[in-house]
Amino acid sequence: MLIEGKNAVRQALESDATINKIMIDKNYQSRKDEIIALAFQKKIKIEYLPKIALDKKSKTAHHQGYIAETVEFEYSSVEDILSVSKEKGTNPFIILLDGLEDPHNFGAIIRSCECAGVDGIIIPKNRAVQVNETVVRTSTGAISNVKIAKVTNLKDAISYLKENDIWVFGAEAGGQSIYKQNLNIPLGIVIGSEGFGVKKTVLSSCDGVVSLPLMGKVNSLNASVACGAVVFEVVRQRLS
Amino acid sequence: MLIEGKNAVRQALESDATINKIMIDKNYQSRKDEIIALAFQKKIKIEYLPKIALDKKSKTAHHQGYIAETVEFEYSSVEDILSVSKEKGTNPFIILLDGLEDPHNFGAIIRSCECAGVDGIIIPKNRAVQVNETVVRTSTGAISNVKIAKVTNLKDAISYLKENDIWVFGAEAGGQSIYKQNLNIPLGIVIGSEGFGVKKTVLSSCDGVVSLPLMGKVNSLNASVACGAVVFEVVRQRLS
Repeated sequence: MLIEGKNAVRQALESDATINKIMIDKNYQSRKDEIIALAFQKKIKIEYLPKIALDKKSKTAHHQGYIAETVEFEYSSVEDILSVSKEKGTNPFIILLDGLEDPHNFGAIIRSCECAGVDGIIIPKNRAVQVNETVVRTSTGAISNVKIAKVTNLKDAISYLKENDIWVFGAEAGGQSIYKQNLNIPLGIVIGSEGFGVKKTVLSSCDGVVSLPLMGKVNSLNASVACGAVVFEVVRQRLS
Repeated sequence: MLIEGKNAVRQALESDATINKIMIDKNYQSRKDEIIALAFQKKIKIEYLPKIALDKKSKTAHHQGYIAETVEFEYSSVEDILSVSKEKGTNPFIILLDGLEDPHNFGAIIRSCECAGVDGIIIPKNRAVQVNETVVRTSTGAISNVKIAKVTNLKDAISYLKENDIWVFGAEAGGQSIYKQNLNIPLGIVIGSEGFGVKKTVLSSCDGVVSLPLMGKVNSLNASVACGAVVFEVVRQRLS
C-alpha cells in the first residue's frame, strides 16, 4: 500500500510500519530534509524521482512529493485492541464505526482517535469503508499509531466487549446527554454512518445511547465531527 | 447561487432564504414529498426536470435530485452577529476562521456551529475559502441559519469584538487546556487554517490561547473536527 503526503510519510517512518521504500520528488533532495534523514537512520531505500513519476504512482493526487511504499495495511484483532489498555493500565477506550462510507471521514476519525488516545477502532468487514490510500493520507499518519480491527459482525463485537466488562454506548440523537454520562469507565462508543446514524439493531445491543445536545435546526453533525466531540469529552472526563 | 441536495434544499425552504425556484428530478414528483409540500406552502415555483438536466445544472455533482436557485449568498455584518446574542439574551458566541482553505471543512464547520448555537462566523475577505456551492451543500442547509460576516482584516475584527467586551481566544496547540478556561463568558474563538493553524500575528491579538489536550503523536486535528470539539465544550460549559 502507498502512504502519501509529507506528514503521513513522516509518521509512518516514526512508527513501526514496515516500509519497503520511499519515493521523493528529486527537487526535494536535501541534507536538511527530515524525512530523508529519518529514512537514512532507519536504512530505508530512497528513490528520487521526477514529480511526474510520483504523480503517476499516486493514488490520491495529494502526495506533496513524498510517497512511502509499505506492506499491505495490517488489521489488528479485537484482542490486540483490548491488550492496549491492559498494557497502559488505563480503562479501555474503543471506537466502533457502524457502516461509515466516506474515506475522508474515516481518515479524520482515525486522526481524532489517535489525538484522543483511543486504544483502537473496530469496523465491519462489509458495507463500510475499508483502509485505503485516501484513508491513510487523510489520517495524516495517525493510522500508524492506532489499531484497527475488522469484524464480520458489529453486534457480535459489541457482545464480546460487554463480556470483557466494557460498557458500550451508541452515539446518536435522542439519548442521554453525553455530558451526564460517566465516561471514565471501560468504554466503547459506536459512531454511526453519514446517512443513517447507528443502525437500530446495533443500538439495541448497546448499554445505552449518548447524545451531544444539538441547539440548532440541523439534526445531526458530520460523522467525523461528532466522533471528535465525543472522544474529546472522554478525554476531558478522564483528565479531570 | 444553487443549493443542492435534499437536506440543504429543505433547510433553505424552512429558513428565510429568498428562493427563486426549485428544480426537482421529475421521477421524484409525488404528493408525499415534503420538499414539494413546503415549496407549495411557500408559493415557490417548482420545475420538474429529467435527472440529466439537473446533472448539468449541478455545481457539486451531489444534488440528489433537488436543487434550489437562490439569490446570491448574503453575508452579514459583524454588527448583525453581535445582535444575535443581544436578542437571545445570551453571552455572545462567535467563531472566527483564520485562512481556512477547504470548502468541505468550511461547510462542516458551519454545520457544527449551527448545531452548537454559535451566533455567527467571521471570515477574512482574502486568502480564505468563501461561501460557494460546495460549502452550502456540505453544511447540509445549516448555512441558512448561521450568519457569516466577511471582514477585510481579522485582527481589526478581533479588536472590535474586544471593544464590545468579548473575550477572544485562539484555538491552537501549546495554550491553556480549554477544559480549564471558563467559556461561559462573551466569547470569540479563532480556528486556524488546515496547514498553518492560527497565524502568530492573529494569535497576538487574542486574549489567550486555548488547546485541546492531544494525547498521541499526531500534533493537530482536522480543522473542522477541532472546531467541533471546541464549540461543544462551550455548549457543555454553558449547559452545566
